[in-house]
Amino acid sequence: MRREIGVAVIGTGFMGKAHALAYRAVPNAFPSSLRPRLVAVADVSEAGAHQAAGHFGFERATTDWRTLLDDPHIHVVSITTPCSLHREMALAAIAAGKHVHCEKPIAPSAADAFDMLKAAEAAKVITQVGYNYIKNPVLKLAREMIASGELGEITSFRGVHAEDYMADPEIPYGWRVDPQNGAGALAEIGNHIVGMSRYLLGAVTHVTAQLETVNKTRPIAPGASERREVKVDDIARLMVTFERGCSGSIEANWAATGRKMQLEFEVYGTKGALCFSQERFNELQYFKAGGDPRTSGFTRIEAGPAHPPYENFTVAGGHQLGFNDLKTIEMAEFIAAIEHGTPTFPDFREAWEIQRIVDAAIRSSAEAQRVSL
Amino acid sequence: MRREIGVAVIGTGFMGKAHALAYRAVPNAFPSSLRPRLVAVADVSEAGAHQAAGHFGFERATTDWRTLLDDPHIHVVSITTPCSLHREMALAAIAAGKHVHCEKPIAPSAADAFDMLKAAEAAKVITQVGYNYIKNPVLKLAREMIASGELGEITSFRGVHAEDYMADPEIPYGWRVDPQNGAGALAEIGNHIVGMSRYLLGAVTHVTAQLETVNKTRPIAPGASERREVKVDDIARLMVTFERGCSGSIEANWAATGRKMQLEFEVYGTKGALCFSQERFNELQYFKAGGDPRTSGFTRIEAGPAHPPYENFTVAGGHQLGFNDLKTIEMAEFIAAIEHGTPTFPDFREAWEIQRIVDAAIRSSAEAQRVSL
Amino acid sequence: MRREIGVAVIGTGFMGKAHALAYRAVPNAFPSSLRPRLVAVADVSEAGAHQAAGHFGFERATTDWRTLLDDPHIHVVSITTPCSLHREMALAAIAAGKHVHCEKPIAPSAADAFDMLKAAEAAKVITQVGYNYIKNPVLKLAREMIASGELGEITSFRGVHAEDYMADPEIPYGWRVDPQNGAGALAEIGNHIVGMSRYLLGAVTHVTAQLETVNKTRPIAPGASERREVKVDDIARLMVTFERGCSGSIEANWAATGRKMQLEFEVYGTKGALCFSQERFNELQYFKAGGDPRTSGFTRIEAGPAHPPYENFTVAGGHQLGFNDLKTIEMAEFIAAIEHGTPTFPDFREAWEIQRIVDAAIRSSAEAQRVSL
Amino acid sequence: MRREIGVAVIGTGFMGKAHALAYRAVPNAFPSSLRPRLVAVADVSEAGAHQAAGHFGFERATTDWRTLLDDPHIHVVSITTPCSLHREMALAAIAAGKHVHCEKPIAPSAADAFDMLKAAEAAKVITQVGYNYIKNPVLKLAREMIASGELGEITSFRGVHAEDYMADPEIPYGWRVDPQNGAGALAEIGNHIVGMSRYLLGAVTHVTAQLETVNKTRPIAPGASERREVKVDDIARLMVTFERGCSGSIEANWAATGRKMQLEFEVYGTKGALCFSQERFNELQYFKAGGDPRTSGFTRIEAGPAHPPYENFTVAGGHQLGFNDLKTIEMAEFIAAIEHGTPTFPDFREAWEIQRIVDAAIRSSAEAQRVSL
Repeated sequence: MRREIGVAVIGTGFMGKAHALAYRAVPNAFPSSLRPRLVAVADVSEAGAHQAAGHFGFERATTDWRTLLDDPHIHVVSITTPCSLHREMALAAIAAGKHVHCEKPIAPSAADAFDMLKAAEAAKVITQVGYNYIKNPVLKLAREMIASGELGEITSFRGVHAEDYMADPEIPYGWRVDPQNGAGALAEIGNHIVGMSRYLLGAVTHVTAQLETVNKTRPIAPGASERREVKVDDIARLMVTFERGCSGSIEANWAATGRKMQLEFEVYGTKGALCFSQERFNELQYFKAGGDPRTSGFTRIEAGPAHPPYENFTVAGGHQLGFNDLKTIEMAEFIAAIEHGTPTFPDFREAWEIQRIVDAAIRSSAEAQRVSL
Repeated sequence: MRREIGVAVIGTGFMGKAHALAYRAVPNAFPSSLRPRLVAVADVSEAGAHQAAGHFGFERATTDWRTLLDDPHIHVVSITTPCSLHREMALAAIAAGKHVHCEKPIAPSAADAFDMLKAAEAAKVITQVGYNYIKNPVLKLAREMIASGELGEITSFRGVHAEDYMADPEIPYGWRVDPQNGAGALAEIGNHIVGMSRYLLGAVTHVTAQLETVNKTRPIAPGASERREVKVDDIARLMVTFERGCSGSIEANWAATGRKMQLEFEVYGTKGALCFSQERFNELQYFKAGGDPRTSGFTRIEAGPAHPPYENFTVAGGHQLGFNDLKTIEMAEFIAAIEHGTPTFPDFREAWEIQRIVDAAIRSSAEAQRVSL
Repeated sequence: MRREIGVAVIGTGFMGKAHALAYRAVPNAFPSSLRPRLVAVADVSEAGAHQAAGHFGFERATTDWRTLLDDPHIHVVSITTPCSLHREMALAAIAAGKHVHCEKPIAPSAADAFDMLKAAEAAKVITQVGYNYIKNPVLKLAREMIASGELGEITSFRGVHAEDYMADPEIPYGWRVDPQNGAGALAEIGNHIVGMSRYLLGAVTHVTAQLETVNKTRPIAPGASERREVKVDDIARLMVTFERGCSGSIEANWAATGRKMQLEFEVYGTKGALCFSQERFNELQYFKAGGDPRTSGFTRIEAGPAHPPYENFTVAGGHQLGFNDLKTIEMAEFIAAIEHGTPTFPDFREAWEIQRIVDAAIRSSAEAQRVSL
Repeated sequence: MRREIGVAVIGTGFMGKAHALAYRAVPNAFPSSLRPRLVAVADVSEAGAHQAAGHFGFERATTDWRTLLDDPHIHVVSITTPCSLHREMALAAIAAGKHVHCEKPIAPSAADAFDMLKAAEAAKVITQVGYNYIKNPVLKLAREMIASGELGEITSFRGVHAEDYMADPEIPYGWRVDPQNGAGALAEIGNHIVGMSRYLLGAVTHVTAQLETVNKTRPIAPGASERREVKVDDIARLMVTFERGCSGSIEANWAATGRKMQLEFEVYGTKGALCFSQERFNELQYFKAGGDPRTSGFTRIEAGPAHPPYENFTVAGGHQLGFNDLKTIEMAEFIAAIEHGTPTFPDFREAWEIQRIVDAAIRSSAEAQRVSL
């Protein structure tokens, strides 16, 4: 029988479900992996906790996440609650010696993230943060191509993460626009593209940013006439400089009418270029410089077995992975890191680095000046 | 505790794995479903059977598929072996009172399929055939739009399923080109687009077809100098007439250099049109006639919660399903049909109907004339 | 001063205008060309003829096209009238020693086309037929790539020309659906894709076709309650075999709701593939077999200076040609052929070859059997 | 006979040719227009001037552009020389009472542009500047949709103009990188997207910009080992605020490997969104908010007769305009303005406004702070 690893999940919303599904899916796609045993699920709502347990096969449900910490059958804790709760939960789990997966953003500020990172490194537990999109096989390819020099010296980056789920000004004031999370669109989706830029190109040294609130008030409840002022950004625009020497622009926008998942980038180098959109995330566009001008152009690479770990899901190219598969890869790499002591990515340190850029952007916007990291 | 349904899978290849993954994934995405219990897996290779059991969590492994039939814990048998074995296995499973999922094509000929269908209907067992692509939420939408008259009267269909996995003439002679399966590309991938045309537009009444062998010989083994004549089609072209009155064309081609999953169709009606490609299967292109010419055009619909059962996988639009998710939907519908006595689609009867079109195409090509069904 | 060549145009509709514009544009893009002098324009309507003369700078206008034939200043006659008038006009022009450009289709039947071809060849005048789309620089590239073997042995062709300008059943009965033209959609737009298949792949030896009338009656006049039966095809589907050994399918459809210019083809060969759509006609998609599977895929080639005669229009790649530029290329090649005695393509002989395929398709459909050419 | 307007062109390069072609094409597409008479062409090279005269049909050629100013047959002067010569030529032409078309950028600085604008307004001559891309019928549609409120309140703009013609560091130092022009990529192509943003959204009030030199030295001549330092930008990134209240980002990049004409924008509003790329400039993507989520998405509008003045070129939708046709529209509007006293756009005043943004960006980058206009 394959060895197991005990897992608990805190939170049962969008990401709580995604974690449960992903843990369950890991042994399917990664048969040599430790098999996650879904020991417990916690939620503030008793009904929610029990429903999640029933749906996803957790052995028990609880409304008190602290009880998970004493359970010796639990080796891993997944934190999928709102951002403002992450710090307390993560520090407690780390103190209990658990490996911790925490959803992004890990904390409302880099300072909080730093505390979490320091605690995790001191306790020598393995950490993982849910930047699932970079688990995409074609983005692993993109990173390799850049790292290996296939694109030559990188000269420019352009990134955006735009969706429309907060475009409607009648969406009530809620946790998404609570300044306790530090920022709005930038904190919630912008860090995906910020993290992707680091994944591809490395450290950022300077940020100039402008954050903007499009929907300046929101009703205090659905349909309420009373409205509350919104202080966080709907749109954030950054100009960044990378340590490697090149610069780029980044935009986060959760009020982009019509966009469901415009997480896109373009990277230009002296020997080639890559373009990617999460809207068609099983593809990568590649231009190789120096070819015959008669037949040169951007090549549409389709994800397939040449792009690990695509083949863990299906042996045939062009069949395509889905969003949940990206989450499965994330969990599989996390569990493999626990088992084999291999590094995880992105871990709490990486999440702190991303958060530093977010914080720098907030400060740059507030102070109307360029900020060094 | 949720009630279970015992499952056995025969075969451990591409589709055996896909079935196992899908059964395991069903309760994740469809939490109210019966929970598949992976009771047993059978394979001709003892090592293969045991490896599959270990990887996918089957309780036991066997090299003798007949032993599955006596197991009272097994309610469902999935048959994923080569086509020529389907008939014997399915008839035995039906005789043992099992519900049967059989991969496509269910049989080398419509006559064989008919025997299987009759046995299943007589035994009142539930059957399902693995035409997974039509489980796509946007294709459910396409079908609905056609059925509801949103496209008006349908005037034309154009379908193709082209891949390149048999393009290389040095791929050795093997079961794929064995005439025992009835046809080549037409039987193996053409029936996907044939089935899709029926799913969208209903019964076909006439077929005119030309089948063609591009790679006329293949080595008898990898690298062998001795070659064997290939008699089945690499490319099949059909002109079909639907009972509803419109006509269309269908192509199957497994030698289409560069194509990994060109399963495409275009449907034109008097009030609109739809275009789909499996290469970007989370999208559907829709033209609505009668709009303002200033702003009319094909609209790219992205799969989302408005397209059931997309939301079972992720609550947010634009996140995308993967190939394995389509298989999960297929299995979930199959299990729901068993539990609730609802009809399945495509069942053995539908598979027989598809096979009749394939057989008609073979005959049309051989006799160089139009064939009525 | 540059030498001139005297031109007359018969007809002032869509194509009459296109010819006039193209003749005027030739010396701009092809400065070493003979300069067309617009001597005369003829139209059945006196007002139409004079308006066209004024708009496009013809020196004189006439309602009697026969008067053009005696004019020694006219060396070239362009015939842009309805198809049923082409034969008489072309034979008269040839008899008068004029070089003749005739719009497509040149005649309602191959027999008529043959008479025209024989007369032209006997008179040794230069002829050209208006299959403008193949004048596209990227299609010249496609042809070269196929001819040079860059795609290996060609294994398959799939072509379509679909538009929607006859989709509305209330469009009155008119010359487009007059059986005097031989066919409907096949004659009017199908011959573009038939001609393109010949341009790329050469002679066709066998045709199996089904022609279909979607809108079976049309009002005899706009808004009229009286309707007349339509006998020509709205949709034609062909299966063709090329002399070189490969086969393909071709569709013509002028009732394809939503389509404005879906003139498309895909060509597959053992070493590569090409895909083209007139909807984005400054692009050509190219797959080259045998590359690194990590980075292989279809490459989107953008028209540029590497694709003659693109550079005659603009020196910078990616700027794009328009439809009228294709017509200009056509006229420039025609005039160059007259000046230098170089062959034209497509000439009356080629148009006759295309018409033979159209006629074969009509016969195949009527007789429900394969037809050899 | 149609009335004529006498035209002279100074310069015979890329744009000199484009102007000549466009003037010649105007009466074809705009038959009621004054007919441009190509009176004279001037070039520093006598051979160049004579060749251009021969190719494009100018009545005479000269190496002394000043001689054009006394010619009473010349009413319009087109200036297509390098930017640093524009001021002197334009002021002289204005002083001579000529209407002036000047290529973009009209001047190396806003101050120079202002002098030109003041002179033109005082002399009451008509001016035009060659921002040809905005003459696109689908961009006229975009502007109308924004102006009419069809997109609701605009919330965001993202624009880029990226090409690769200066990506190669071995391209010698030349006029393009001469700081006399004020800027590099920003001045040469960035002003297209800056102008487009103004065309769509109106005045810009604030700019924060970073300009960057990627290729820091260039050989002083082709193949030379001696190199010269480059001081102008290869890449410019701007964050802009519009007077109407929304903000946006703009990038200019002439070192974007693989890009031939990535002139793109996305505009988001509360009721809809538009996306455009010059790479496919006969299309406009439109999302209309509030539709049925089952069938909502971005609609690909194809240019056609519903988009004036498309129909002046061809009566059938989907046939497509080319780059030279955009230039023809520009010239036709210029000549119509002269004839009818209608306003031109963009005129010298608009070009000055664009140049002010460019200057502000240069200053913002140099001073590392936000600049108000």
